[in-house]
Amino acid sequence: MPELRKDPVTGTWVILSPERNIRPLFYLEEGENELTPENCPFCEGNESMTPPEIYALRDKRSKANQPGWQLRVIPNKYPALRVEGHLDKRGEGFYDKMNGIGAHEVVIETASHSKGMDELEVEQVRNIFLTFKRRILDLKRDIRFKYIQVFKNHGRMGGATIPHSHLQIVALPVVPVRVKERLRHAEAHFKAKDRCIFCDIIHHEQELHKRVLSENSDYIVISPFAPKLPFELVLYPKSHASSFEEAEDSIMHSLAAVFRDTIGRINKALEHPAYNLMLHNSSFDRDCKDYFHWHLEIAPIITGTGGFELGTHSYINPTPPEEAVEILKLSS
Amino acid sequence: MPELRKDPVTGTWVILSPERNIRPLFYLEEGENELTPENCPFCEGNESMTPPEIYALRDKRSKANQPGWQLRVIPNKYPALRVEGHLDKRGEGFYDKMNGIGAHEVVIETASHSKGMDELEVEQVRNIFLTFKRRILDLKRDIRFKYIQVFKNHGRMGGATIPHSHLQIVALPVVPVRVKERLRHAEAHFKAKDRCIFCDIIHHEQELHKRVLSENSDYIVISPFAPKLPFELVLYPKSHASSFEEAEDSIMHSLAAVFRDTIGRINKALEHPAYNLMLHNSSFDRDCKDYFHWHLEIAPIITGTGGFELGTHSYINPTPPEEAVEILKLSS
Repeated sequence: MPELRKDPVTGTWVILSPERNIRPLFYLEEGENELTPENCPFCEGNESMTPPEIYALRDKRSKANQPGWQLRVIPNKYPALRVEGHLDKRGEGFYDKMNGIGAHEVVIETASHSKGMDELEVEQVRNIFLTFKRRILDLKRDIRFKYIQVFKNHGRMGGATIPHSHLQIVALPVVPVRVKERLRHAEAHFKAKDRCIFCDIIHHEQELHKRVLSENSDYIVISPFAPKLPFELVLYPKSHASSFEEAEDSIMHSLAAVFRDTIGRINKALEHPAYNLMLHNSSFDRDCKDYFHWHLEIAPIITGTGGFELGTHSYINPTPPEEAVEILKLSS
Repeated sequence: MPELRKDPVTGTWVILSPERNIRPLFYLEEGENELTPENCPFCEGNESMTPPEIYALRDKRSKANQPGWQLRVIPNKYPALRVEGHLDKRGEGFYDKMNGIGAHEVVIETASHSKGMDELEVEQVRNIFLTFKRRILDLKRDIRFKYIQVFKNHGRMGGATIPHSHLQIVALPVVPVRVKERLRHAEAHFKAKDRCIFCDIIHHEQELHKRVLSENSDYIVISPFAPKLPFELVLYPKSHASSFEEAEDSIMHSLAAVFRDTIGRINKALEHPAYNLMLHNSSFDRDCKDYFHWHLEIAPIITGTGGFELGTHSYINPTPPEEAVEILKLSS
């Protein structure tokens, strides 16, 4: 059973998950791709290589865990956390821990082994976002879960172990420190100004228009004023909305279009870099409707980080966001 | 001029340092080492390839910036921050920023191109620690600086761009969020218990003795209860001491011996992994003598991190610290 342990000095919860030690690494050497559609567990025809699917978009006449799908959600074969059991929160001498209860799912975005998110049809990208919504709505019914992190590791430097395009969903019984920090700042701003800090950022950036990459009627993509990493981007819904899963299905096409365009620009400008994608959403343990505003963070991984970043959580970034936006605007 | 910008949502200061964009990357491909002693800027004979030295340990008859040295401290050729100028703290519309004032130095640990820290004589490792002390004491006289981060990036996955063994010192005009977090937790513990949280951890771990790797009369090396990364280790002075630079010269030999042994064990057990080293020290903006306790964090980089870690600052670690210590104990 995995365990959640709290670092008494930083307040960070760490997931100790010994079973992930046996996970194979498919990226053996940089640039070398050992997996082919024949032996890739995420390819059509190899459904038996994964745990049984939780959800899929598939042809009407096809059967679960058989070919004929466009998107599959499966439990992670090497889960960091387990759904079964009790939290059993307890002390261990001086320290705090609990059982590693949670969910760890994988969204296989496409049956195609080598297509990136910008090579999918807008409709398929829309399906991916609709799947997030569906899975979050389902998982948040479990009252043990306090936060859900949706993320994507793309490329070896982005932490991916399988190159076939996929996303991950981790449901946690605790609210992580970085999420708490964000909520604390947003709440303080709301208390002082009676306004959402993210709405303020959007309006301010729309006025300046030097860090806005693109926008449509519903969404806006900005390179933040203080980006941790070069070419970091944030995608916001323009109308205040605290929880991703409450977005109407009718605007998911608009989200898919602006998102796909953004990934396409990054791939063109930076020659298909590794990247991380993170959905920053409300936590379930408090009412943050007024002051939180969901957003997607897109972080290309083109420079290494090291002891400075690990030690301080500050970052040294050589690329000003204003320059990054200029370059990305020219890349379509 | 580099700029410090504050992320209004996380409170993190980011250093925007466009000049670092022109820095050459000497690690081109994994495993491929383009630098030889002939063209390595940190090798003896190539002193003209670096900015003039700030400090050096050298033969009495040798001259500054000439061969004949055992250790050199130089300004980083591509500094993230600059010493000259004023902070000029100001708003930019909605946001907060200041000039990128600070110091960014490099400690070249040895004249040897390929020796790791565990291959140096204990005396040379002692000289490295004495150099930290000397540089910190010098830099903290500049009242603009609030925190100094000493760190080492070793190996490409650890963020190093030059393989010749070196450390870095960054003096900052702000206290980074992770440092503030640590100080806040330590202060709260002190207020509640009238004891240093780190002293408590040391005593607790000495009693249990299942996460203690080694100790001598002055220092102890522990794998923490909630390690972020596999085989993470923390080295503490056993007697309460808030600031590294106040350590007596007389115990630096003892520190060097236990540290060198630790790196040797990591290199043996994990086959010379990439690693980061971070000195966690007092900040200069408050009196934390009673509640802070300096320590060295040693973090081998053997698993990738990705969107989950970047998004949450929580970590998924497959290796329990109790197992890591067992493996490292057998590796000497």
